[in-house]
Order: sequence, then structure tokens, then C-alpha cells
Amino acid sequence: MSNHQLTAGSDVRAACRLGTWTKPTCGLADGYAQANLVVLPRELAFDFLLFCQRNPKPCPLLDVTEPGDPVPRLVAPDADLRTDVPQYRVWRDGVLVDEPNDISKYWQEDFVSFVIGCSFTFEAALIRAGLPVRHIELGVNVPMFRTNIACRSAGVFHGPLVVSMRPMTPSDAVRAVQVTSRYPAVHGAPIHIGDPSAIGITNIERPDFGDPVPIKTGEIGVFWACGVTPQAVIMAVKPSLVITHSPGCMFVTDVRDEELAVG
Amino acid sequence: MSNHQLTAGSDVRAACRLGTWTKPTCGLADGYAQANLVVLPRELAFDFLLFCQRNPKPCPLLDVTEPGDPVPRLVAPDADLRTDVPQYRVWRDGVLVDEPNDISKYWQEDFVSFVIGCSFTFEAALIRAGLPVRHIELGVNVPMFRTNIACRSAGVFHGPLVVSMRPMTPSDAVRAVQVTSRYPAVHGAPIHIGDPSAIGITNIERPDFGDPVPIKTGEIGVFWACGVTPQAVIMAVKPSLVITHSPGCMFVTDVRDEELAVG
Repeated sequence: MSNHQLTAGSDVRAACRLGTWTKPTCGLADGYAQANLVVLPRELAFDFLLFCQRNPKPCPLLDVTEPGDPVPRLVAPDADLRTDVPQYRVWRDGVLVDEPNDISKYWQEDFVSFVIGCSFTFEAALIRAGLPVRHIELGVNVPMFRTNIACRSAGVFHGPLVVSMRPMTPSDAVRAVQVTSRYPAVHGAPIHIGDPSAIGITNIERPDFGDPVPIKTGEIGVFWACGVTPQAVIMAVKPSLVITHSPGCMFVTDVRDEELAVG
Repeated sequence: MSNHQLTAGSDVRAACRLGTWTKPTCGLADGYAQANLVVLPRELAFDFLLFCQRNPKPCPLLDVTEPGDPVPRLVAPDADLRTDVPQYRVWRDGVLVDEPNDISKYWQEDFVSFVIGCSFTFEAALIRAGLPVRHIELGVNVPMFRTNIACRSAGVFHGPLVVSMRPMTPSDAVRAVQVTSRYPAVHGAPIHIGDPSAIGITNIERPDFGDPVPIKTGEIGVFWACGVTPQAVIMAVKPSLVITHSPGCMFVTDVRDEELAVG
């Protein structure tokens, strides 16, 4: 299927459900918010919901389902989270055991699904504002780093904040603060600007996840809280069963990026 | 004790703990955010946390404790929620059974406490902006109304949105939207302006809670989501045991009102 036909969130989800789209969702359904997915058993759901509530910058919740309900009723009321993501990852005791295109056979009546905002939304806003997004220009993945900033723990969940970095001139960085402040539901304003070592990053050329990008003369790193944080925090706990989307293969919602803007 | 001595959140809490302050907290600790308190058993906590997550305008969470922990570690790390509110209300099966100044004897190891933002913060901002707040001018309680707008339900919790109303000229209403949009953690922007019947309010002169205030010629009602909503929603479920603050007797945090502003 050509991605030119996938112009709405519902188009992408239908193609995933039919099995005709099984690849990353970057560039699909322009203007619709895409999301990270985490599916956990009910016994961990209170602690994880509390973790997200306490750490809204890395874990901006767009929707949380009732136990057993595969429908994210706020952000895509006709979707089915068991079938509507291009590719999933199934983790048992912290080990990746399957990468299916459908998780119906794994579904449990006590599963709670967390739909978590994704940086695609604020990157679209940066681009509309004429600001450079280096990794998109270069066609690589955004560089991500573990920091020495501890998330606020909640129940069994704890761990360091993971950030993504985009290089900019100082004046563009100021504008980027303004632009992304409008999107608290998708990581919001940066958490740091400038010296990487101030947040525990020892080598800016060697990200912990994703790809390195060059910082040009006169530019500084601008650091945003990253949606890899909740996944890293969950994996550290090694739950008996947890399901996530595969990297880049996001859940596409019915929510317009602009609906997530405030002010 | 004179309220002139109670200039910080910690002063108010210490006076509550000693039993020297047992009255409403309006006007105390200027500049510090005050909060609604709801204490529930763990078995209801996931559903209620989900309710708040889905209804952030009426239920803006400032802090949620671990089960059994009486310390709100985000907003007042040296506080004790069992003693630091001037007066509490204890509800059994939906019936008010006690109004103590200390809830230590009721405390359970499975209690989860919800600290919920309060309109005092945005009213202070309205006043700083030179906007009229009629019920404060008149020295009465804010008028509150049940609407025909359903909250998003979560587990056992469901019910109508309750709003508070402040009359303003249309141009002041525009400014009030701007000012309160900066405070999403304390109800944020209005949910309605103008015709009360459009949101199911049949008689603007007869509020469901609080006191009526006059709407002058040329003014319109400006309606904000109200912290009475979560209490009404909980009471409808009639939990075997729930504890709240007494009306007006808020929990005073260490958080500055301005820390809750965005943008």
C-alpha cells in the first residue's frame, strides 16, 4: 500500500488491521498525533499510571484504557489496540520474545493500555515554525541519551530520565522553547539547553539510543524529555508480560496535532 | 493564632498540626498553592486516578501519594496529610460521620491521597491582572452549578461536570481566558462563556453549591471546571470510607502559584 493513501489516522489503522501496512509510521497521516503504546497487566497499572502522573514530561498520557478494553476511547474510539499498530514487541520477564503484527493471541482480560504522546507532534510544529530538525534533515533517528536526572519513582517504577537532542542556534533554541511549550501533551518545553555534562551526558557524539547528529559551530544542544523513558523504566522491572509498539511503528490516533496545543 | 503569622505553606501546616488553626485557609500563605484533598482506599485508587487523568480540568492532580504514605512528596515533602489540614470530613458509605482536625485514628495502610489543584491559585492571578472576582468582592462563596456535560467515566466513577461561575464583561472574559490558560494545573481556561442554558444550567440565580452573585448589565457568566466535581463523583459511589478536607479548609502546599504557570 502506498503511504499517499494513508492520509488520516483511521486509514493507517485500517491498513495495519488488514496487514497491508507493517512498517514505521513516520510521514503517514500528516497532522494526526502518533503515539507510543504500552500494554501492562492490571496489577502494575496503578503504579505505572502514578509514574506517568508524576513524570508528565517524559510520559505524557493521551489515553489510558479500562482493564480489558482494547479501545482507546478518547483518542480513537473506533480503533482496536490489538490490531491497529504496524508492529508490536512482546516482552516476557524483560526479554523480547515476539514481534507480531497483531497481539490478539496475547490479549488478557486484565490488560491496561497506555497511549503516550510522541515527539512527532512537536517536531511537525518546529518544522512549521521554520526551525531545523537535524535528524529529520539527515534522515536518521533522533539521538537519545540517558541523563543523571532521576524520574520521580512510583511504586515499583524508577529510573533515569532519557532525553532526545536537537542542535540549534541559541536564537532558534529560544523559539523552540516557545513553540514546544504549546504542546505539554507531547513532551512540552525542553528540559535542558546547552552543556550536555550538566545533565550527565559524557559524550554527545555517542547517543545511548538512535543515531548521532552533528552540532555545528555556533549551535547548542536542546534537550527534550523522551518517550523512551517509560519503556526503559518498565523494562528495568522485567514484568512477566508487557507489550509495546516496535520502534517507529506508532499507534496513529484521530487527534489532530493542533488539538494538543494549549494557549 | 493570627493569620499574619501564617505567611508560608509550612506555617499554615504547622499551625494545623498543633491545633492552633482550625478554620478556612482563604487568605493565608499568599502566593502558595492551596489544594483539595481526597483520601481513598487502594482498591478505588486506580479508578480514581484514571478518572482524574481523563478529566484534568475538574480534577487537576498536583500530587498522589504511594499507598499508606501520608507525605505528599512532590508538593510538600515535610507535610503529614493526617494532621496538616485545618478540618477534615470523614465519610462512611456516603454519609458524613465526623469532622475532625486530625485523621490519625482513621488512617489505613492502604490509603492513597489525592492532592487536587484549587481555584484560589487562578483567582489570585485574575486579581493580579486587575480582573473582577465578584464573589471575593462580595465576601461570599463562589456560585457552583451542576451542568449537563458528562465527565469521562473511569471504572466505578462517573457523573456530571460541576462548574464555578464568575461574571465579567466580554473584554474581561477574553483576558480571563488568557490569564487562566496559564494555569492548567488549577482548572485552566474556562469551559464555557455566556448562555448558562447551553450547559444545562436552568437558573443562574440559584447555584447548586455556594452563593448566588449578581451578573450586571453588559456582563456574561464565565464558567470554569470546579474541584467539587471529583468530590461529587466519589460521593455518588458511596465508598465504605473516604476522607476529604472540609469546604474552604484546604491543604496548603509548598508550591508557589507561579510554579504552576505554563508559557
